[in-house]
This record gives sequence, C-alpha cells and structure tokens, in this order.
Amino acid sequence: MMIVMQLNAEEAQVAAVIEQIRAAGLKEHVSRGAELVIIGAIGDEDRLSSARFERLPGVERVSRVTKQYKMVSRDTHPVGTSFKIRGALIGGEQIQVFAGVRSLDAALPVNSVTSMVQAAACRLLWAGSESLNQNPYEFNGFEAEKLIELRAAARSHALPFAAELNDFSVLETSLANDVDALILGARSMQNRALLRELGRINKPVILRRGLAASLSEWLLAAETIAAGGNHHIILCEQATKNGLDIATIPFLKRETHLPVFVDASNGAKVWMVPALAQAAIAAGADGLMLDIHPNPAEAPHGGDQALDLAQLQQLMTALAVIAPALGRRI
Amino acid sequence: MMIVMQLNAEEAQVAAVIEQIRAAGLKEHVSRGAELVIIGAIGDEDRLSSARFERLPGVERVSRVTKQYKMVSRDTHPVGTSFKIRGALIGGEQIQVFAGVRSLDAALPVNSVTSMVQAAACRLLWAGSESLNQNPYEFNGFEAEKLIELRAAARSHALPFAAELNDFSVLETSLANDVDALILGARSMQNRALLRELGRINKPVILRRGLAASLSEWLLAAETIAAGGNHHIILCEQATKNGLDIATIPFLKRETHLPVFVDASNGAKVWMVPALAQAAIAAGADGLMLDIHPNPAEAPHGGDQALDLAQLQQLMTALAVIAPALGRRI
Amino acid sequence: MMIVMQLNAEEAQVAAVIEQIRAAGLKEHVSRGAELVIIGAIGDEDRLSSARFERLPGVERVSRVTKQYKMVSRDTHPVGTSFKIRGALIGGEQIQVFAGVRSLDAALPVNSVTSMVQAAACRLLWAGSESLNQNPYEFNGFEAEKLIELRAAARSHALPFAAELNDFSVLETSLANDVDALILGARSMQNRALLRELGRINKPVILRRGLAASLSEWLLAAETIAAGGNHHIILCEQATKNGLDIATIPFLKRETHLPVFVDASNGAKVWMVPALAQAAIAAGADGLMLDIHPNPAEAPHGGDQALDLAQLQQLMTALAVIAPALGRRI
Amino acid sequence: MMIVMQLNAEEAQVAAVIEQIRAAGLKEHVSRGAELVIIGAIGDEDRLSSARFERLPGVERVSRVTKQYKMVSRDTHPVGTSFKIRGALIGGEQIQVFAGVRSLDAALPVNSVTSMVQAAACRLLWAGSESLNQNPYEFNGFEAEKLIELRAAARSHALPFAAELNDFSVLETSLANDVDALILGARSMQNRALLRELGRINKPVILRRGLAASLSEWLLAAETIAAGGNHHIILCEQATKNGLDIATIPFLKRETHLPVFVDASNGAKVWMVPALAQAAIAAGADGLMLDIHPNPAEAPHGGDQALDLAQLQQLMTALAVIAPALGRRI
Repeated sequence: MMIVMQLNAEEAQVAAVIEQIRAAGLKEHVSRGAELVIIGAIGDEDRLSSARFERLPGVERVSRVTKQYKMVSRDTHPVGTSFKIRGALIGGEQIQVFAGVRSLDAALPVNSVTSMVQAAACRLLWAGSESLNQNPYEFNGFEAEKLIELRAAARSHALPFAAELNDFSVLETSLANDVDALILGARSMQNRALLRELGRINKPVILRRGLAASLSEWLLAAETIAAGGNHHIILCEQATKNGLDIATIPFLKRETHLPVFVDASNGAKVWMVPALAQAAIAAGADGLMLDIHPNPAEAPHGGDQALDLAQLQQLMTALAVIAPALGRRI
Repeated sequence: MMIVMQLNAEEAQVAAVIEQIRAAGLKEHVSRGAELVIIGAIGDEDRLSSARFERLPGVERVSRVTKQYKMVSRDTHPVGTSFKIRGALIGGEQIQVFAGVRSLDAALPVNSVTSMVQAAACRLLWAGSESLNQNPYEFNGFEAEKLIELRAAARSHALPFAAELNDFSVLETSLANDVDALILGARSMQNRALLRELGRINKPVILRRGLAASLSEWLLAAETIAAGGNHHIILCEQATKNGLDIATIPFLKRETHLPVFVDASNGAKVWMVPALAQAAIAAGADGLMLDIHPNPAEAPHGGDQALDLAQLQQLMTALAVIAPALGRRI
Repeated sequence: MMIVMQLNAEEAQVAAVIEQIRAAGLKEHVSRGAELVIIGAIGDEDRLSSARFERLPGVERVSRVTKQYKMVSRDTHPVGTSFKIRGALIGGEQIQVFAGVRSLDAALPVNSVTSMVQAAACRLLWAGSESLNQNPYEFNGFEAEKLIELRAAARSHALPFAAELNDFSVLETSLANDVDALILGARSMQNRALLRELGRINKPVILRRGLAASLSEWLLAAETIAAGGNHHIILCEQATKNGLDIATIPFLKRETHLPVFVDASNGAKVWMVPALAQAAIAAGADGLMLDIHPNPAEAPHGGDQALDLAQLQQLMTALAVIAPALGRRI
Repeated sequence: MMIVMQLNAEEAQVAAVIEQIRAAGLKEHVSRGAELVIIGAIGDEDRLSSARFERLPGVERVSRVTKQYKMVSRDTHPVGTSFKIRGALIGGEQIQVFAGVRSLDAALPVNSVTSMVQAAACRLLWAGSESLNQNPYEFNGFEAEKLIELRAAARSHALPFAAELNDFSVLETSLANDVDALILGARSMQNRALLRELGRINKPVILRRGLAASLSEWLLAAETIAAGGNHHIILCEQATKNGLDIATIPFLKRETHLPVFVDASNGAKVWMVPALAQAAIAAGADGLMLDIHPNPAEAPHGGDQALDLAQLQQLMTALAVIAPALGRRI
C-alpha cells in the first residue's frame, strides 16, 4: 500500500501513519521527495484497511499496489487455461460457439432448437434464466419445466448443455438435471453466496460480466470461484449501455489465464450480431455465445436479437473462413 | 405502440404491419406524411411484442407509447404517498434520517451504534448486508448473528429497525426477527423473485436503485412490489460510478407518488457526506440514509464513508436549520 | 413530430396543441386510444420547436420522427460512397491503413516517419494537432513548422498526406501546404464554424467522433459538411472513456453511406492495438488510423500507444491475411 | 512517479528502470516487498514520460504522484479566492446568481431580458454562443449583432455582463465591446490556444466543464489560464449525459481555492431547475448560472429549459430563504 501525504504534512502525521503500518505487522518504507512524502507499507497488504489511513490527518490518498485477485491472474499462471465441457475443448485452438435461447416460455419448440444447434454445428446449447423483461404484468422468461425439457433434448442429441442461473433454485434444478456447465447471469455476478457455491461444484462456470462491474470486480468474482477449488471458469463479456467494448478482450487475455468469450447477442439487434461476433474473434476471444430461436418473430422476448437458422448458418460459414486467418478454427 | 416505416416503404410492407396489429386484437391508425408513414397501434400495448414489428421488412423503428409502470406512476395517483414505519411518518413534512452500519462484523459494538443513533436523534437504525468488499479472502461484511443483536438493541431503545437483504436467507432472518422495514440491496434490484416476495410481505420496503438501472427499470421494480399488494415503498437513490445525479430527485417526485430518499454515504468519502445530504434535501428528498460507525477507523470496510458521532450530530444540526427553509423539518 | 398527451388531458389542452401545429403550417393527425391521446404533426418537422409543445399544459412528451441528417443518411443514398485521396480509393474493396504521428515536436525524425509508412505499405501519412497532454507547463504537441516538413517529406515519397486541425490557424497552414485530406479533431467535432468551412473546401475530410458525442450528433456534424457541398467524408470512430464500442461500426454501415474508419490507437496501449485493429476490420470498417513513431520511448507524448516499425509491419502482415477472409484486401 | 514491477521481474529489468530515472536527473527509491519491487522516482516528475517506463520489459504499471495543477490547487493556496466582477463579489458570503440567454437570435427582445434580470435581482446578465442545436439547416444560435445589443442594454442598466465564447472571433467581439467577464463554452474547455489567450486577458473567466472532461482535466484547463497570469477564474459545473453530479461541488471546494458555480439549466427541463439550483447551493456552490427568456415558448432553441420571469422570481425568493440557513445570502 502506498500512502501519499499532503504537501507540508507534519512529521507527527508521518509518524502516525508509520505507527499504523507497524501495528498491522508490516514494514514502512519512506520516500522523502522535494515536495512530497510517500510511505510504502511492505508486507501483506490485505491486512491493512485503506480507510484507516485515509482518516488520518495529513494523508492525501492511499492506493493498493498488489492485485486482490491472484489465482486467476496471469502473473501466477502464465500459460492459458484450457479444459473440456463434455468433449468440447475450451481455450484451445478451436473457437467454440455456444448457441442458446434466452427466454424459456411454454411455447418454445424444444426439438427445433436442438436441431438448429446441430444443423449449424454449434458446440453447446445454453438456456437463459435472466429475463429481458422486467414488466411485472408479463411472463418473466423462465420456466423450470422447460429447462428440464431442453436438457433432455440436448442429451438425446449428445449436445453439451449449459444452464444460466441467478439464484439457488435454478442451481438446484440444474444440478438435479446434471447439466454440463453453469452460466452465472450478469445480475448475479457479485452475489458472493452463489459465487462460493459455484466454487464448490465440479462443473465449468461461464461467468458473465456484471452490468456495471469494473474489470477488477469481475476478476475478483472469478477469483471467488477459483478460491473454492473450481478452476474451470470462462469469462464472458457482453454489451452494456455503453455498447460492446472490444478492448476488454486483449486486456483480459493479458491479465488472466482464463478463457474469454463474448456474448454477441446481448443488447444487440440481430442485424449487428455477425459484425460483433466477427470482431470478437478477431480481437482474440476463445468463443462466442449467441441467441437463437427457430422463429424469432414469435418469441415473447428477445426476438429482436435472436438469429434464426439461416442467419446462424450464414454466420457460422463466415466464422469458418475467418478463423484460419487468425490461426484458429471453428 | 408507434411503428415508423422506412422512407419509401412499400404498401405491402405497411399492410403487413397492419395485419400484425389486428392479429393481436388492436386497431391501427395510419398517418401518411410527405416523407413517412407512421402506424399507431391503439389498444393494450402489452399484447404486442416490439420485436415482431422490428423484424418486418420496411420497418425503421418501433417505440412504446404507454409506460409499463402504472400503480407507482403519479399519473394514476396524483397525491404523494405517505405511511409509517413504527411511528415514523415517511413522505410527510418531516425529513427522516435513517442511520446505519453497512458492515456487520463480529467486533461491531452494537450498543454504541444504538446510542449514536439516539444521541443524534435519527429516526431509524438500518443494517447492511451488501459487502463493499468482494475480496474472497476477506470477511464478506455480513454476520446474521450480528443482525439479530442489532435488531434486539434497537427494540430495547424503541428504535425502528430496517435490514438490508440480497437473498432469501437474509429475508428469512429478518422476518424471523420481526424487523420494521426491509431494504433491497442495489445488486438485487432486478431480482424478480425477491421483488415478488416483497410484494407479498406486509412491511415497508426501501428499494435501492440498481447499479446500472435506468429510471424506468427502477420504477418497474417498484411496480413489481406494488403489483403484489405492498404499496409501502421508498425509492432510495445513491451514487454510481458517474457520481450522485441530483436530477433524479425532481424527476422522481414528478413521475411517481412514492417517497424518495437519498443514500448520501454510498460511494462517497466522509468529508463530502454533509454536502451530499444537504443537496439531497434541498432537491426535495423525503429522507436520507447515512452510514455511521462508533469508530470508523476500526471498521473492517467502509470506514472511509462512515460518520462518527460528532460528525453525525454536526450534520443533524445543519439539517435542522436547513429543513425549515424548505418548508420541512427534521 | 409526435406529441403524447398526459393521461386524462383535457379537450382544451388537445385543442391548444392542434392550434400550434396548424399555426406552423403543418397538419395534425389525432389518435385517441383507450388511455392516451397522441397527436402527430404531419409536414416539415423542422418548422416546429419541441419546446413550444413541451411547455403546453397536458403534454407528457414530444418526440421527433424524422432524422435531422438527410444527405449522409443511407435512406437517401442506398449505395455506399467511395472516393479517392490522391489515388487511394476509400470505401472500396481495399481496406486502407493510415499511419501517423500524433505529436509534432521539434525532435521528430521526419524522414524516419515517412520511411516507416512506406516500409509497412500503409497508404497515407497523417499528422496530429490535438495534444494528448493538457499540462500547461509542457509542450502542447504541435509545431506548425513540423507539419510543413512532414508534408514535404510525404510528397517527395508520393505518399498521400492528411493534417489534423482543431482551429482555423492549422486549417490555413494545411491549405497553404496543399495537404491531400483534412482530419477534424475530436474536440472540434461540434465546432459549427469549422464544419461549415470544411463543407466549402474541396478536400476529403476525416471526421473524428467527438468525445461525448452521440451517433446522431456525429452524423449531424457530417451533414453540416455535406450540406456545404463536400461529400468526401470519412467517419472515424475511436475509444472513449468507456472503451472502444465496436457496435458503432455495423450501426454506421446501416445508417449512412459514408466510409467508416476506426482509430485503433487513440486511448489504447500499444499491446492492445493489433487486437483492436483486427476487430475493427472484422466488424466492417473500411480503414484504420494508427499511431506510429520511429522510437516511441523517445516520444514526448503518446509513446505508450504508438507502434514502432516492427510492430507496424507485424500488424500489416496479420491484416493482409485476415482481409481476404472478409472479402477485402489490404 | 511510482513504477510497479511485474511479479518476478528480473534484476536487470529493475536496473534498466533505475537507469532511465537517473538519466532524467531524478533519484530512484526502491522498495522490495515480499512480492513486488516498487521504484519511486524522486524529483521533478514533469521531466519523466510515463510511456518511457511503460515500454520497458518487466514494468507492470506507472503512476504519477504529484498533481499537474499547482496554482489552482488548494495545497498551495489554502484560503478560498474571491474577486469582483464589476462590483459583484464572487466567492464571498453572497451567493451570486447569473441569468442569461443561451441563444442570440434576431427576434430576442433585448430590453425585456435586461428588465427580467433586474426585476429578479440577479447580479449579472450572460449571453451564450454555444448552440444547443447542431442542425445545419437551422439558425445556429448566435448573432454577433445581438451580443452587442445585449451588452449595451446591460450597461445602460448598470448590470455586469458576461459573454460566452467558443472561438477567437467571439472573443474579439467581446473585448471590443468591453464585456465584464468571459465564459469559456464547454466544447472549448480543452482548446489550449483559447485558454492561453484567456490567461493573458485581464477579465474574469467562467470556465465551464468540458462535455467529457475529468475533474483533473478541468483543473488543468484552469491552471492553463492561471499560468498566464489571470487568477480570476470561476469553475462552472453543469449536467452531462449522466445527469448533474452533485459530488463534484464538495470535491472542488476541497481540491481548489477557486469559486465554484453550477449551471442549473443546462441539460435540464424547466420544471427541475429549482430543485437543481437549490441542491447546488446546499452542496456549497458559490453561485448559479440560469437560463432565462421573456417568452420561452417563442425561443427558437432552449425554450424547454429557460425560466420565465415568474419562475425566476419564485426561485430567487426560495433561494433567499435557503441561503441564510447555509450561512450565506443572495
């Protein structure tokens, strides 16, 4: 931790900072410049509360030096992580495309969905649980019965299957039906109880970025899962109200060893999905999540962003041409 | 719903839009201008999916006309709502100040907290559950045991008590200990299961604004509670990464009849809390939420934003002078 | 223009709105739904001030229907625009890469810069004028003398040359030295006097997006140039404080017929530039702007984002492989 | 400057950093912790380029320690600055309200404007130059002739007068007409040529915050004026696309000795202006800027945010009651 003193801070104020550092079992390291005194606290930074220093007189500001995430940092694990979800290698040369339905309503034609995923040669079917629609007077976008049906259909076609969850009840349904991977919804990215539970489960986790989460908050959420013992984590970026920031892909590839995906449908219109998907893999993403629907115009929600079969196949064809130019394959 | 056609849309495309409107049981209303055709759908807009129209050829854009929130709208309830939390009138002439502790750690001196609230004549004690700290290697900021202790201490001093919750487990603890009001944490503002449960419970709810929630998403969350039958809702604004937007106060006072509070501590530093609190009531807020701590430098988290007793008393004194100038009182 | 009345608006209030519409020479079109009255104003929307309606009693909100930009809209010009800058075709099959130096300081080795651009087969050399550095005690990043030297060096190598400007003085220097294209800096995107002047000049303009400009504000700035008679406009997107939003590329390709470029260096670190550049062309950009420097560590400003020769050549090689997979070439 | 090395950085990498520090004439100060090596550069930080270090192998990140603004910092001038604009004391006990017209069109009734300002006892009349309207097919909101008329009317009523400028031509007109203060428009906050010119002029400057400017960019712009010798600077905060962040007021009052104003009209609707104005002074602002118009419904632009006479007088009355509760007066 670095404590920058105010200009003209008094010696007694400097001494008070040093006393606090020593009281926590760390060592101080004092730099006296022409203008400023800066005090470094050497040792385990996690034992210091920055507020304690900020409230001391004469202190200008306090900043951490070490990162709070360690297991997911590339510093401690320079080689990129790869693992399998029911046979599909994540984080390898192959770019994996996961296709799914965001809204599980009673009318969803389960078999058409599964056929679409297979016809387009996507590698995994996912099912959403996070309603796009907050209108209390309408269907909320999730029926557990439908999740079970989809999971069964996927299995009968030997398709890996992932279920999105936002609370413990969907987690239970998912585990009871032995899904192949779990997706933590964006609204739950900072739910520490869920994160800890996912750390204890032996299933890969796709961790969506929280709606307003900084990159370090996101990596700390991944760290919480990893700290529980589950290291099979995919980070999945998605559009926010500010659009889809493509700079997070190279940032994450440098900062963490975890595989990085992009959800190219969330928050988009269907006509922009191919451009976003292509950009994501060109920026280095290891995979994509896409919204699909056999008949998007009939979907109660999200029909504006879901690809139909022809659109999905056309995109997969385009990606198959681009991937080799990036040294990868679909 | 208004459907704006593209320039030079064909008659057959206009007809296809009209057909969809009629199929949903609504009536069309077509405006043909020099440049544009605009089609209004007259009737219950909730029966139309905008995606259905967006995917039709020749359609430029689709926009809703009616608001999705109705019960919480001032349109349907022009007079401001007021109600009591254990004797404290919310939404009346009196500005209510709720003081609380954000982090419930084992070392928290429960009696000192209660004494502070009383000494400063604040009207309610609240307890947080949403950790400021996402570091998996540290205490997460919530111990249920401490919540129970605080609730008991508040009762013994006849202080109203509110507990913040982020999942069903804290809700159960809160109900089992008969708290006087419930606070829904910002990270859970779009948790529809929790919102619906709060609609069924006969306790006032303080609904914090979600981290990246728009004003209409926030009002829809309130609508979800109200639709369940619970109309005792306080909207509580707080700082985001973009600062504390004070314009939301007059907007909400115009748009909804619900009481509006501001959390002047969240995301702030302690030295700016008085300015934010004063600004909030000058902008028309009905109350404040404040972080307090008997010894902020010792708080494991949030010590940089918590007022100590002297600071709290000084602020209450200032507010007591300002309130009458606004036609209100503390 | 659409005027949505408040619930329960009175007939006299509706009549007052209609009177205003007629007074401006337009025709009204009234939709009376179960809940709402909506009034359309049919005719030339530009003759109505929305504020006039917003201030009338009983009016809930007012929204424009037609777009304010017309000449740059794809509605009125469905085919993409292409034009040449000294022989380099913009908006065609070839993706054009423009390399440049952002800071023109006295020590800049002009010949090394020109050689770099040629060695890497970039198609144009550009020179910046918008300092990255606002420190009043340091060099501001622009020396007119250096601009003249760079322009001369480019001409002697038959390289097209573009100069960035932020005020009329740089515009004069640029015209006096007969540059091949002009770049309007991001901080000047809403300078209407400069925009109008660029509309009168017979030179292609690269219009950077303003720092906080919405897409429609940006397109209106382009419209201002086009309205003056200059239709050779490139829109150049760049990172903001929210990162580089890649969704603007497909949006612009749909909304306007103008060529779209991406500045992949602005606001980035050098190690992320290749990922951003690749993503930009995969999303459909017609060209790139890149920062280069013969010796970035010696650059007084912007050295953290400038590519050196080896990095530039490596990126050009990668782009040459990717472009054909997108049906284009470098 | 602090250079944090990567975990496991090699000794040779540390040595290379130290060599660069010494080459620039500064001294290094090396902290070796259990995990990290951190190197401080002691001396004049302005002589170091952070990019130079960022490009060295083994460097994790580089951060400045001292602030780039010095003259405007409260560190170097602990007492708040106050000065007069033609008799009106700025930064004193009195809260100053400046009323003005944002759009100078031919039809503006100059005498009614001046009478309004006087009738409401506002202390200064200002005139805008920054059009709210970017539509190239409409009036741009500024006529120099009208500025001259307004200035004459103000003088004949002994009202101080301030003119907003966005380029050198309006500056010349303003100086030729001997205005009492100059307002730098938000779009020009980072125009270094204009800032330097304002530093040379012996007239108070009201410096609006740039559209996307950080607080330190804003303070650096003020520093540029101060460095030229003009210390009569008012910082004027205003709403952005994220609303009106009230936390900037206490931040600025702590960070700088300059007076702080708030423009309560910019980006607002007229019905929220009183709430914003009240909040601003409750948060500690030294003054307000307000939009007024004798007949807002007839204003070609900005009529939705301008107060009419009755609204202005009502607000002034409210402020006169609140100010004493804050230890100030109107």
